[in-house]
Amino acid sequence: MSKTIAINAGSSSLKWQLFEMPEETVIAKGLVERIGLNDSIFAISYGEDQKFEQILDLANHDEAVNLLLEKMIELNIIASFDEIEGAGHRVVAGGEHFKESALIDDEALKLIEDLAEFAPLHNPAEAKVIRVFQNILPNAVNVAVFDTSFHTTMPKENYLYSIPMEYYNKHKARKYGAHGTSHRYVSERAAALLGKPIEETKIITCHLGNGGSITAVEGGKSIDTSMGFTPLAGITMGTRSGDIDASVLPYIMEKEGITDIKEMVDILNKKSGLLGLSGVSSDMREVEEARTEDSEMAIRVFNTRIQKYIGSYIALMNGVDAIVFTAGIGENSITRRRDIMSGLTWFGCTLDEEKNNIRGVEREISTDDSTVKVFLIPTDEEVMIARDVEALKNK
Amino acid sequence: MSKTIAINAGSSSLKWQLFEMPEETVIAKGLVERIGLNDSIFAISYGEDQKFEQILDLANHDEAVNLLLEKMIELNIIASFDEIEGAGHRVVAGGEHFKESALIDDEALKLIEDLAEFAPLHNPAEAKVIRVFQNILPNAVNVAVFDTSFHTTMPKENYLYSIPMEYYNKHKARKYGAHGTSHRYVSERAAALLGKPIEETKIITCHLGNGGSITAVEGGKSIDTSMGFTPLAGITMGTRSGDIDASVLPYIMEKEGITDIKEMVDILNKKSGLLGLSGVSSDMREVEEARTEDSEMAIRVFNTRIQKYIGSYIALMNGVDAIVFTAGIGENSITRRRDIMSGLTWFGCTLDEEKNNIRGVEREISTDDSTVKVFLIPTDEEVMIARDVEALKNK
Repeated sequence: MSKTIAINAGSSSLKWQLFEMPEETVIAKGLVERIGLNDSIFAISYGEDQKFEQILDLANHDEAVNLLLEKMIELNIIASFDEIEGAGHRVVAGGEHFKESALIDDEALKLIEDLAEFAPLHNPAEAKVIRVFQNILPNAVNVAVFDTSFHTTMPKENYLYSIPMEYYNKHKARKYGAHGTSHRYVSERAAALLGKPIEETKIITCHLGNGGSITAVEGGKSIDTSMGFTPLAGITMGTRSGDIDASVLPYIMEKEGITDIKEMVDILNKKSGLLGLSGVSSDMREVEEARTEDSEMAIRVFNTRIQKYIGSYIALMNGVDAIVFTAGIGENSITRRRDIMSGLTWFGCTLDEEKNNIRGVEREISTDDSTVKVFLIPTDEEVMIARDVEALKNK
Repeated sequence: MSKTIAINAGSSSLKWQLFEMPEETVIAKGLVERIGLNDSIFAISYGEDQKFEQILDLANHDEAVNLLLEKMIELNIIASFDEIEGAGHRVVAGGEHFKESALIDDEALKLIEDLAEFAPLHNPAEAKVIRVFQNILPNAVNVAVFDTSFHTTMPKENYLYSIPMEYYNKHKARKYGAHGTSHRYVSERAAALLGKPIEETKIITCHLGNGGSITAVEGGKSIDTSMGFTPLAGITMGTRSGDIDASVLPYIMEKEGITDIKEMVDILNKKSGLLGLSGVSSDMREVEEARTEDSEMAIRVFNTRIQKYIGSYIALMNGVDAIVFTAGIGENSITRRRDIMSGLTWFGCTLDEEKNNIRGVEREISTDDSTVKVFLIPTDEEVMIARDVEALKNK
C-alpha cells in the first residue's frame, strides 16, 4: 500500500489528486490557482466531504507545493512525506521522443525543457514543478505522463501536413495532438463496455471541454486526432478557432492593422471559438443560456464541426463501433450530445433520449438497436497518471 | 442559331471554347499562354481535327483577344464578328453578392473589380478581358459566371470560421469555396444518372485537378465545400497545402527567418501540396511514377485527406447517394479512385475494378449492389458557361 500524487500544473495553477495505490482510491484532491499573482486560491477536499480553503499570496510553484505538502500533514491526510512514493506529472508536449510515460531522470527532464517550443506556456511550468517535487520528496519516483504520447501511433500520412517535407525533417513541424491521456482512458473504457478486445475495436472519442479534440482510435491506438501542431486546430473550442484557412490570417492582419503573426495567432487562441462567435462567453453553458442570434449560430458551428470530424474518422477507419462523449461539455451537455447525434443516424447510431438525459455517469446512451454504440464516459486523466506511476515504479 | 464563346482568363492565359447554341456543339476551342511574356503560345483546334498554332509575342489580353477573333475569321470558323452573340466569362470571386451568373453592366463590372481582394491574381485579369470583349464585340451579351456562386447556398454555420464575428461582419472573412461551376455540372449529371430528382439527392463531388475541392451537394445545393476563404484550404493539391494548423505558420517563419506572413502563405500556395511533400512534382502522374519514399507518402497523404472529406460530408448530410470523381486526376487516375474508394466500403460503396478501368468517360464505376453509387463524370465548365449566357441572353 502506498500513495501516489497525480499533478497537473499550468503556468499559474496546480491541480492534484492523491491516490491510495494500487486500489486507485482518491484520498484527497485540490487546486491552487493564481500562483505568482496576488490572492492565490488554495483549496483541498479530503475525507468525507471535508474542505480546506485559504486565500494567500503564493509567489511561485515552489511555495505552492511546499504549502500543499505541509497542509497534507496538518490535515492528517498523510503522516509523513515518505508515504508518497510516486508523483505523476502531466506534461503537455512530449514531441516525437516520448512515445509513452517515462521515469524522470536528468536526461528526461532536460528533454521536457527542450520541448518548450512546442508548448511554451506549459512545459517550462511543468518542468519547474517536477524539480520542486524532486527536492521535497527525494525518495519518490517521478513520472511524466504526456498529452501527446497516445497519439505517437498515428501513421505518418495522418500526422504530416502537406507542406515542404524539409519543414518536417528539419523542424519537426507536424501534428502532435493533445488530450492523449483522456482519449486513452475513455477508449479503454469504451472497449470494455463493448465487451470486445480493444484490438478489434474502432472507436471515436470526443473530448469536449473548454479545449476539445476528437480522436480516431483503431485497435486501441490513436490513428488521427483533430488537434494539430498545437491545440489550436480542430473543432470549435471555448476560445480557440479550430481549423481555418491559413490565408485568412494575412487578410485580417491587413484589415485590422496587425503586424505580428504571433498577435494574430494569439487572437485565434484566446478570442475566437465560442467566445468570438457568440460575443457572450467561452463557456458553453453561458452560450446556451444567452439565446442571441450569434450565440445560437456559435452552437450550430460547434455542432457541425464535431459531426464532420466524426464522419471523417469513420471514413478513415472504414467503420466505427462506438462514439464516446467525455469532458466538461461531453459529460454534461445533454443538448449538445442530442443535437450532434441527431444528425448522424445514417451511420446506425440513434441516441436514446431517456438514457441520454443524464450528466457525468458512465453509460451507454444509444438505443438498443443501434449498430454503432454511443457512450457517455466521464474521463479520468488522474487515475491514468497514477496507474502509469504504479507501472513504472514497479519496473 | 447563334454562337457563344466561353472564356476562362488567367493572369497570363486565356482558354476559350466557341459553341453553336442552343445545340451546345463545340465549333472551336483554343488556348493562349504566356500572355505578357515573350514567346506567347497561341493555339486553336477546330473543324474535324484541324489545328492552328503560332508562337509570337502578345503583350496583353487585348492583343490576345484581337488575334483570336481575327484568326476565327481567317480560319473560316466564323464569317463575321456579329455571329458571336454571347460571351461568357468565368470569374473566380463573386463574394456574397453574386449568387448566380450575371449580365455584365457597368455596375457588375465594377463589383467584379472591387472583389479583387478575394482573388488578386484572377478578378483584375478577368475584368480586363471582359472590357476587351465589350469593345471588340459591342453587340454581344457579356455574362459573368462565378466560381463561388454555386456555394452561396451554404448555410451560415458552414461558411463561418470560428473567429470573432466582427471579422465576418466588417471584412466578410468567411468560406467562399471555388470550382462551383464544375461541382454544379457534375452534381446535375450525377442526379440524372441516379434517375432521381436532384432535390431528393445527396451527392459528394470530388473535383481533383491541380487544384482540388470536394463539395457536399444536398438537394442540388452546395451546403459545404473544402476550399475556404481562398483556394488554399481543403485537400492536398498540386502545390497547395490544404488544411493546416495556423500555429504552424509562426513556428516555421521563426525557424526559417521568414518575416512576411504573405511570403509564408505564398509557400503554402506554391511550394506545398504534392510538390512539397514529394519533392518531385506537382503533377500527380509524375508523383505516381517517381516511386520514392516521399512521393509514395505524398500519395498516401493525398488519399487520406480526400477520404476524410468524403466522410465528413456524409456526416454533414446524414447520408449520401453518390460520390463523383471529376477533373484531371478524378477523371484519369484509375489508381487514385481505386485507393480512395477501397477505404470507404463500410458506407456501402464498392468500386467495380473493371468499370473503373477507364479514363475520361461518364459512367457508373461502382458495383451493381453498391447502395452508394460512385460515378466518373468528366466535368464541362465551358458548357455551363454557354448555357448561362443562353439563359440570360433570352431573358
